[in-house]
Amino acid sequence: MNKSLVKTAITPTRQEDYPEWYQQVIKAADLAEGSSVRGCMVIKPWGFGIWENIQRQLDDRIKSLGHENAYFPLFIPLSLLQKEAEHVEGFAKECAVVTHHRLEEKNGKLVPAGELEEPLVVRPTSETIIGESFSRWVESWRDLPLLINQWANVVRWEMRPRVFLRTAEFLWQEGHTVHATEDEAIQETLSMLETYRSFMEDVLAIPVIIGRKSKGERFPGAVDTFTCEAMMQDKKAIQAGTSHYLGQNFSKASNIRFTNKDGQLEYGYTTSWGVTTRLIGGLVMCHSDDDGMRLPPRIAPKQVVIVPVIPRPEVEAEVMTFADRVERKIRELKFHDQRVTVFVDKRDRRGGDKNWEWIKKGVPLRIEVGPKDLENQGVTLCRRDRPHKEKMFLDINSLEEKIPELLGEIQNGYFEEAKSFRDANLKRDIHSPEEFQRFFTPKNGDKPEIHGGFVLGKWSEDPESEKLLESLKVTVRCLPLEQSGTEGKCILTGKKATVDAIFAKSY
Amino acid sequence: MNKSLVKTAITPTRQEDYPEWYQQVIKAADLAEGSSVRGCMVIKPWGFGIWENIQRQLDDRIKSLGHENAYFPLFIPLSLLQKEAEHVEGFAKECAVVTHHRLEEKNGKLVPAGELEEPLVVRPTSETIIGESFSRWVESWRDLPLLINQWANVVRWEMRPRVFLRTAEFLWQEGHTVHATEDEAIQETLSMLETYRSFMEDVLAIPVIIGRKSKGERFPGAVDTFTCEAMMQDKKAIQAGTSHYLGQNFSKASNIRFTNKDGQLEYGYTTSWGVTTRLIGGLVMCHSDDDGMRLPPRIAPKQVVIVPVIPRPEVEAEVMTFADRVERKIRELKFHDQRVTVFVDKRDRRGGDKNWEWIKKGVPLRIEVGPKDLENQGVTLCRRDRPHKEKMFLDINSLEEKIPELLGEIQNGYFEEAKSFRDANLKRDIHSPEEFQRFFTPKNGDKPEIHGGFVLGKWSEDPESEKLLESLKVTVRCLPLEQSGTEGKCILTGKKATVDAIFAKSY
Repeated sequence: MNKSLVKTAITPTRQEDYPEWYQQVIKAADLAEGSSVRGCMVIKPWGFGIWENIQRQLDDRIKSLGHENAYFPLFIPLSLLQKEAEHVEGFAKECAVVTHHRLEEKNGKLVPAGELEEPLVVRPTSETIIGESFSRWVESWRDLPLLINQWANVVRWEMRPRVFLRTAEFLWQEGHTVHATEDEAIQETLSMLETYRSFMEDVLAIPVIIGRKSKGERFPGAVDTFTCEAMMQDKKAIQAGTSHYLGQNFSKASNIRFTNKDGQLEYGYTTSWGVTTRLIGGLVMCHSDDDGMRLPPRIAPKQVVIVPVIPRPEVEAEVMTFADRVERKIRELKFHDQRVTVFVDKRDRRGGDKNWEWIKKGVPLRIEVGPKDLENQGVTLCRRDRPHKEKMFLDINSLEEKIPELLGEIQNGYFEEAKSFRDANLKRDIHSPEEFQRFFTPKNGDKPEIHGGFVLGKWSEDPESEKLLESLKVTVRCLPLEQSGTEGKCILTGKKATVDAIFAKSY
Repeated sequence: MNKSLVKTAITPTRQEDYPEWYQQVIKAADLAEGSSVRGCMVIKPWGFGIWENIQRQLDDRIKSLGHENAYFPLFIPLSLLQKEAEHVEGFAKECAVVTHHRLEEKNGKLVPAGELEEPLVVRPTSETIIGESFSRWVESWRDLPLLINQWANVVRWEMRPRVFLRTAEFLWQEGHTVHATEDEAIQETLSMLETYRSFMEDVLAIPVIIGRKSKGERFPGAVDTFTCEAMMQDKKAIQAGTSHYLGQNFSKASNIRFTNKDGQLEYGYTTSWGVTTRLIGGLVMCHSDDDGMRLPPRIAPKQVVIVPVIPRPEVEAEVMTFADRVERKIRELKFHDQRVTVFVDKRDRRGGDKNWEWIKKGVPLRIEVGPKDLENQGVTLCRRDRPHKEKMFLDINSLEEKIPELLGEIQNGYFEEAKSFRDANLKRDIHSPEEFQRFFTPKNGDKPEIHGGFVLGKWSEDPESEKLLESLKVTVRCLPLEQSGTEGKCILTGKKATVDAIFAKSY
């Protein structure tokens, strides 16, 4: 089939221009838009609906592990950041600084006034401000473990913002915990990593590789950083969530001490872990196609949309009544212990326009209900994971069984598709720097973003080799938790290899 | 009974020092604490649990009326605020201003760097930044009504902060809507006012008087502001929520225009409405007593707490098993369509300490489970709305019926108690400025905060009379929606009265 003859809802296609395709999918699905504040996005209702589903389901998992939510100040006094020498070193330099607390009119113009004695930084992350509270909350071993989570907005000034992936302001959850022993704290760090993995794979249908970050890629101040790495459709990696074991570094800076069972004063062992609205960007880039978003049913704000088809005004009333009946039937159904979400689109627009709107938004199942369907006591159903013209006819009495079954098929299908793609583009048999370089270099005539994908290979952990990667714009994504344990030579230096590592270009 | 012999959990008592009592209840219930950022509070897990319950239940009501959630930037460019001349006049002057986007080290100290071309204001409310998006979202009458809500943090610099009641940063929801006609927009304003009223009365058990604000107390830029006013136990008023009809004022400033059915371009009619974490302060001041918080069951993070009683180590295992069985039974129960929330307190602390902790936190029902209860296959139950020594013995098989029944009794009891108190302190028969002044003036020997309560009386709406009120630190709280319609003389000026008004001291 001649590509140029196939009309897609999104222009350009993934093949034509992947970065621009990403922007166009977000626009077509009405997920978000820019604002007059550089780097700050507006999350529109459909995008925010996805975030609310992420929040609700992840929050349930976080709470079921004993964590409680709290809320800490948006601002951090400069002097508090100053204490965290190492942390600040690598981190907080690009941030929004509040210096005044009033506006005044001067020649008809508003100007900042009321200079603060001490500037305040808008939180880029909350270790320091939360540490201040924790130092008061923790006194004895009886107060431990302290398991706190916060849903909040944070700001990191971004020079090259990109909607969802890298924005000056973004939304996230940040967990912060204190433990009596190193073992417990490491256990917590890994347990949250596993929570993220299962959430991403089971709910978002995004397969991830979990592993440890190399020294150079660690969170500033962390003893160990663990990560979930996912492959997008352009074969680049996205860091989808991180979990940090902070040792006693932050407890020493914040003076978080407790009296242990022997009556001695000890510093606590802390962790922190988070995922952000970047996950929405990951969903877009992992599952969408040239017709727009494809949403895994477990995260879709609406799983089923019913579009009434009214060929003649005189059938409108009975078709609408039938549509409402179908809606009520579906609303009673459950999918993964939650009510199926369904919406009858009665808006005063053309049926074709409505259909395409829901295709572009990625709704898993679309149902058309017209006079014929009413006559047959059935519905016409389209799956977002199949060609748009493919239709199924279902008897109204089979909805109860079929709707949850189809949602499950789509959910699993998206995951399997993404996993097959990832596995097909994860190369394991590279043995020399030359092969490595070839894998990551666009072929003649290819666009610069075309490259081989992920490499899983032996690595010496030699910091020099990480510098070598720079020229290829490749990074060590992680040292997978699952290590082969075999010996071998570093694929970058030829030296003795100590670990298996994942190498990739990334967002 | 000699007051000084009665030991209360909170010192001072309400009688002794109401403002200080408020602070101590918040501390004893572990709701919130101050931080190193002036005026910014840390909301601790128990306080945040209340906020989460407010969010969930109010969000359900807001969504059931067709609104969708979205998220808009934290920052507002100064030039955008400038456009809202009138709005800014009364409002946005005390706010946090971001002037730099980087920190640099200078002589080992962090200093602000990277001055912004245009300063950014941390949102004190979002009309302007949301208006900017709405001007893009609204094109035709088909796009209306546009019904958007946002849960967010906002910042208003406060010179005299007070936890929950007046803090520099606070959490809230802000609804923003656009309509094709004035009628529809007014309808929306009143519908949200009614949503707030029923939520406050039914869920928070706080009786409120709903009404219109006087001209002088309107939201800057609003055509009309409606409010929910509640009486606290010191007889002062708290403004618990507001709903504004903005006419075309904001749509003109933000250029929110739509093509109507006749093809003509028109400005939309907008509304905005919000409630904040101040509601938690209202809950404390409305229901708490000298032993701490008393939480209405529908808003309590935990409705039932089970404290195992272990007089001898050898009974521990069987008492714990029995406590778990009781918990499972209670967790199956429903109260107002939600699972009853229950917690077995197995922490390694003394039973008496645990009991007092839950009393101070305001848990509606406490259950003690000991060897005797196990023997009798029953539990010992204490209600937070009764004297602490009053105990009920319940057969385990009666829990199913009794727990929801008791929760309902407590919920209604708190509301009736607050309503009786309010009605007893709402004076309707004041006819002269002298009587009015006497009502609001402390009697000989009374503390300055002692006064009569609310006055419902005739008012001329003469702005001069509002100034007269200033000397008494009394304000017109609202013109109740329910108006007598009778004629009469203004109780402040003796002039012809146009309306009935509520006068009170307030937070």
